Parts: sequence; C-alpha cells; structure tokens
Amino acid sequence: MLNSLKQQVLEANLALPQHQLVTFIWGNVSAVDRENGLMVIKPSGVDYMASGRRVEGWQKPSSDSDTHRALYLAFEALGGIVHTHSRHATIWVQAGRDIPAWGTTHADYFYGAVPCTCPMTEAEINGRYEWETGQVIVETFRHRELDPAAVPAVLVNAHGPFAWGSDAANAVHNAVVLEEIAYMGIFSRQLSPELPAIQRSLLVKYYLRKHGKDAYYGQ
Amino acid sequence: MLNSLKQQVLEANLALPQHQLVTFIWGNVSAVDRENGLMVIKPSGVDYMASGRRVEGWQKPSSDSDTHRALYLAFEALGGIVHTHSRHATIWVQAGRDIPAWGTTHADYFYGAVPCTCPMTEAEINGRYEWETGQVIVETFRHRELDPAAVPAVLVNAHGPFAWGSDAANAVHNAVVLEEIAYMGIFSRQLSPELPAIQRSLLVKYYLRKHGKDAYYGQ
Amino acid sequence: MLNSLKQQVLEANLALPQHQLVTFIWGNVSAVDRENGLMVIKPSGVDYMASGRRVEGWQKPSSDSDTHRALYLAFEALGGIVHTHSRHATIWVQAGRDIPAWGTTHADYFYGAVPCTCPMTEAEINGRYEWETGQVIVETFRHRELDPAAVPAVLVNAHGPFAWGSDAANAVHNAVVLEEIAYMGIFSRQLSPELPAIQRSLLVKYYLRKHGKDAYYGQ
Amino acid sequence: MLNSLKQQVLEANLALPQHQLVTFIWGNVSAVDRENGLMVIKPSGVDYMASGRRVEGWQKPSSDSDTHRALYLAFEALGGIVHTHSRHATIWVQAGRDIPAWGTTHADYFYGAVPCTCPMTEAEINGRYEWETGQVIVETFRHRELDPAAVPAVLVNAHGPFAWGSDAANAVHNAVVLEEIAYMGIFSRQLSPELPAIQRSLLVKYYLRKHGKDAYYGQ
Repeated sequence: MLNSLKQQVLEANLALPQHQLVTFIWGNVSAVDRENGLMVIKPSGVDYMASGRRVEGWQKPSSDSDTHRALYLAFEALGGIVHTHSRHATIWVQAGRDIPAWGTTHADYFYGAVPCTCPMTEAEINGRYEWETGQVIVETFRHRELDPAAVPAVLVNAHGPFAWGSDAANAVHNAVVLEEIAYMGIFSRQLSPELPAIQRSLLVKYYLRKHGKDAYYGQ
Repeated sequence: MLNSLKQQVLEANLALPQHQLVTFIWGNVSAVDRENGLMVIKPSGVDYMASGRRVEGWQKPSSDSDTHRALYLAFEALGGIVHTHSRHATIWVQAGRDIPAWGTTHADYFYGAVPCTCPMTEAEINGRYEWETGQVIVETFRHRELDPAAVPAVLVNAHGPFAWGSDAANAVHNAVVLEEIAYMGIFSRQLSPELPAIQRSLLVKYYLRKHGKDAYYGQ
Repeated sequence: MLNSLKQQVLEANLALPQHQLVTFIWGNVSAVDRENGLMVIKPSGVDYMASGRRVEGWQKPSSDSDTHRALYLAFEALGGIVHTHSRHATIWVQAGRDIPAWGTTHADYFYGAVPCTCPMTEAEINGRYEWETGQVIVETFRHRELDPAAVPAVLVNAHGPFAWGSDAANAVHNAVVLEEIAYMGIFSRQLSPELPAIQRSLLVKYYLRKHGKDAYYGQ
Repeated sequence: MLNSLKQQVLEANLALPQHQLVTFIWGNVSAVDRENGLMVIKPSGVDYMASGRRVEGWQKPSSDSDTHRALYLAFEALGGIVHTHSRHATIWVQAGRDIPAWGTTHADYFYGAVPCTCPMTEAEINGRYEWETGQVIVETFRHRELDPAAVPAVLVNAHGPFAWGSDAANAVHNAVVLEEIAYMGIFSRQLSPELPAIQRSLLVKYYLRKHGKDAYYGQ
C-alpha cells in the first residue's frame, strides 16, 4: 500500500511541470493512507526530475507538510492534495478574491465560487505558520458552510492555491482545472466588470450531471 | 462512406489538442452523412489519444450529442460541428457578449459578429438540456436573421463555443479562427473600449473576396 | 540572382510559423531584385510546409502582391516585405492606434511610433483594394514625414501589420520585434494609461547607437 | 578559476532562451572573479547558439559591459548579473513602476518591492550612457536604503530589468522569478486596482524562512 502511494505521489509531482503548474520546484503533492495513518509528500527542495530516485529515502519532508496534514485531519474525503503557485490562480490569490462560478467549465468541477481565505493574523504568521495556514482553510470552509468534496480547492490569501481530490492524480486534475478557470475568470471580468455568477439552476445542473447519483456526463 | 466519415471525425478530434483548443477531454467533433441519416461523434469520455482505437466500437456517444443533432437538423449546410471550451472564446461566452467584427481576420471567416445566445430558461435547463441548447442556438440565428453558412460559430451563454463547417476538418479550422479572433478581440477592446465594428464595405469586401462567386482570395 | 532570391523568400516564409507570427497561412513574405525589376512572393494559398517544393513553379501569386509591389515602387530602401496577422500587432491594428515608442526595445528598431493608417475610403475598398492599401501606407509615411528605413513597419487599419527591411530575413526580424513591442505596449499602457512616449534623447541615443554612422551597439 | 567562470557564464547565457527570457540576442549574463579583478561577459552580438565556440576568443564585450562593471564595483555581494528585455518585467519598466510585493512568491526572493529607477537625465543619456545606467541603479538603492543582496533586481526606467545573485546561475534564477512576479503583478493589479502590499509580517516571515540564519524553507 505505501509503495503504491509513494509511486502515485511521485507521478503526481512529476505531472505538475507537465501541466505547466510550477516554476522551478514551487509546488508539492501529497497523498494519504488513512488505514495506516501515513502521509506521503514530496521531500523538501528536491528537484522534480531528480526526485524520481530520491523519494524512497528519508529526507526532510516539504516545509508545507503541516498544511497538508491539517487538511487531511479536518477533511475526511481528501485522498490527495496539491499546492502550487500556478500563475493565474496565484493572481486571484494575490488580489485576495474568490473566483466566482462564471461558466459550466467551472460548474463541472466546483459547486460555487472557489473561496479565498482572509489574511492571516500576526499571531498565526509568527506562530506555527504552516499548521495555521491549514486551520485558516478549514475555518473558511466551516464558516461558509462549504463541502470540501464539492469545492475541491482554496486560495490562500497572498500565498497560493491548494487543490485536492480523491487521490493525488485527481488533486492534480483539479489543480489544472483551477488554473484554467482562474485564467478565464480574469478576462471574463475584464469584458464584463459587473458579471453576475452563473444561474443557480445551471450550476446545479452541471455539477449533478457529473457528480450526482444520476451522473451521465462525459464529453 | 461511414468508415470514411469515422476517420474524418477521428482526425478532427485529434486535431483539437494539436491546436490547443482543449484541456483534458473538454471538446468533441461530429460529422454527418446526410444521405444515410447518420451522425458520427466522439464517444463520451474517451481520452483523445485512446480514441484512435475505440471509435469503431459502440460506446455511449458524447453527452453533447443532442446539441449536435439539433444543429444538423436545423442547419442544412452543416457537414461537421466542433464544441470546445477553448480559452478565449469561452471568456466571451462567460461574459455573455458577441464578438464584434473588428478586423479583416474576422471578416475573412465570419460575416458579422459571432453571436452569443441569451441565458437559457429554468425550463430549458431542467428539461432536455442538451437538446434545448441546440434549439436556443437555432432560435438565435433565426431571430437575428443570420445565415449559419456565413457565420459558422456561436457562443452558448455561460457554457462554451460551437463552430461548424462543410465537414469536420473545416469545422475545426473555424474553431481555431474563432479562438484567434476571440483573443484579439479582448485586447482590441482594452485598447479602444468604444471600438466600432469594421466598416461595412470592408466586411463585405473581405467576405466576398474569399466566399463570393468571384472569390480570388489566397495569401 | 533570381534563384538566390527565391531561396531567401522561401526561407523567410518558413520562418513565419517558427516565430509564431502566423496561424494557418495568414502571412506572406516577398523580396525584390531591383536590378532586373523582379519581385518574388509566396504563391497564393500554398501551405508553408508544402511550399518548399512548389515555389519554383508558376502559381498565381499571393492576393496581397499588389500591396507589396506598391511599397517597393514607393520606398526605394526596401529589399523585403512581410505581411502577417500576428496577434498583438493586429490588436493595435484593430484598435486603430499607433504603437508609441515606450522603451529602448522599441527605440532599437523603430525611430518613433509605429504608425497606424486611417481607415480606407469606400472608393479605395471597392476599387483596386490591394493596390490602394499600398497607396494608403505610402501616403501615411509622406504625410507624417516618416522615413521607411527608420520606421520599418506600419499597421494597416482594421487589417494587419506590414514590416520590411533590407532583405526578406531582415523584414521577418523586424516583424518579430514589432510583435514583441506590440505585446509589451498593450500591458505597459494598462499599468500606466497616460504613459508618455520615451524621452526624445533616449530614442535618439538608442536608434543611433545601433543605426547611426558611429554605431557601436551589440548585446 | 577563469576557465570555470567562463563556463558558468556561457551556461547562464544559454539558459536565458531556455527560460524564454530573451528574443533574438536581447540579453547578457556576466560573472566576476573578485580575487583577480576579472569580469566575464557575453561577447557583443554573438548568437546564443554560436557563442558556445566563440566565447573563448577575444571579441568586443557586450555594449552593456559598463553597466555590469558599475554594479560589481558598488555592490560587493554580487557574483553574477543578468540583463534581459523579458516581456513582463519590461512592461513594468516601460510603465516606470516598481513591482510591489503582492504575495509570498515575491517575498521568497525579494524583500520588498522591486524598484524602478527614475528616468535618466539628458546629461547621463548623452554622456557615458551605459556607465551612468549603473550609477542610476546604485543611486536608487542608496537613496531608498535597499540592500542589493535582499532585493536582487532592478527595473531601469524605459530600458529593461537587471537581476543578480551569488553567481551567474543564481542571477538567471532570480531573473526567472522576476519575470514570473512581473506577470502575476500585472493581472493582480487588474483584479484589485488599489491592492496594498503584502502584510509586513508575512514579507518578513517568508524572506527569513528562506534566507535568515534559521532558514528552514524548501518546497
């Protein structure tokens, strides 16, 4: 089980540059083995191309590990998590804004806006920063009554996006979609500055035709 | 005839990622054999690379099939149809705006603005949604008195673009042009927010030098 | 001489897609042999990849030939001309605006703004359109007292850019630079909407350090 | 030592087009051997691909050499310098604006805004221009009390960016990051025009977790 999980995390980490989600080593993927209480994450600071050989060893885990751990503990549906600084999602992050649901591309994957967290407090920043980052995400979902399985991504204010899924590969898939809707959102808003969110009935329709119990979607 | 049509549809589907019109499997191409009343469309949810082998089988057709079918039934000139979520056309889609004819690149292919449909009604969304999508497109062209052979694309509000042509390859060609003029239009409007459409005489000149009975165009 | 010129034009035409200046066959390059009064231009509508073999034949020349011819006749310094619909130069074209000299990248190649022509008249559009396009360019340079050797490009209103140079390869080089400054100009203006042109002394300095009789430039 | 330095400069120059930081030959990298008082810089006007063989010879150095030299003399921490006209950094350059610290991607590398210099005076432009460019950069850092080791880049007004680092490869790395934050900054500002800089505590946190004496960072 653990070896298979390591392989999945390795492949998912290698997929990040293939999807142009990362510059240098600015990103990490993890996956969880809930039965044995183990989390696999990219070793800290290892180059993607090199990590193929080294991931089996016992290197210091990514400095973002505590954020991943906090999310796995709070959100039971998560099997894999991706953190990147992908260009267009990070633009929304820096602007401190949610990405509204402006089309069916968005509605196919995210059941409503992708939320942006509030800025962190001085205490959180100067305390256990990475762990607190996870807590701020969890608090954002609780406060807004969002289901992390239905909205599989978040924008951490001034920092970067996290996306997740049923496993590491699915988390990467959602990170790619997040980047795509982030790109389209910037310019949709440029064309129509007061753009309202997609009609609720269309949001529901798209989400359920793909994720509901009577799902029939496929392109 | 049908085998040849299947081959054309396969090649056209494979052309979508080559022209960077699709992310993952977000797109489909179809073609019609009007003599035998048959329509060929990409099987639902099959990866592009894999579809090379599977298109001969009897898989469930794309969930968008009903939209394609509605268009073939209403618009007699259509031999092929492409649906994508290509980035820049989808930005206009999400903004709910027509793409005005702002240059000869546009006029070479589209005889006037590329229309964006009205939002669909609750009844249409909750009814036979994909079929109704086709009806909304058809209604848009009838209401605006547009000839689908002269304006070979449409933007479905909040969803995505459809382009068509004499066959599947020509439909893909028009989808590429649509994406190009969508990109240029976003920033042309940024430079000149009150930009008027191209002069009517220039629109006519360009369209007819390529498509009129005395066509002489070629670059 | 003519065979060598054909070879240069062929290579320059093939360079257009390599520099991502053209979609499909939307572009053409020509060169002139002034001694023998001959002009070589890409045959009309031939695909770039295929044109390697066919350019030696006697196909119908590009429909834009009359514009090229008009420029060679009026501007004696020109050895090669390129016409494209390259994305960002065409955005300025569609917006109907000059590209101001906003930096030394621009000043290294263009001694002042790249001019955009006025819209053409009905008579010009409905007359010998391609030839009249050339006349409008020539008139723009005469009226503004511009030296085509110092400003080696023009934006034809609502149509597309033309760039030129001492030979076909140099014309392609200038078309690449035009596209680059067009891109940067769109967003420079976004950051500073009332952006003034570069200081005159800096414009002069850069142009002369590369093109003046005491040129010493090289990066 | 010198041969090793030449090799490093060669590799760093070749890395510029790989990171898409340069069009044609618009860029140069240098490195310094402080012990022997030698500076290695790309020969002027040599094509990247060709320079692999020629850099051992005694060609005329880049026309920008005097700017590099001025920086090495004033800033003791510098081991390598890169000058490019990379697209998005140059957009800020042309707009004459600092790039504010708007996120942790920025804070990981730059301890505050990347400064843009004032326009140069007529005397500076018409005097020893390249040397004066270096002096303007040095003066900008002195006047603003910036540490070039903590803010390893500058935007030279109307010209282009310079980035530096502990050696040539590190300077290229910082030039890539500069281009990335320049891109994100343009559109972050579009989404939130009055966007304040990142919280000071977060700026400090990120910079120190990577560069402070207790650095623990790694992704």
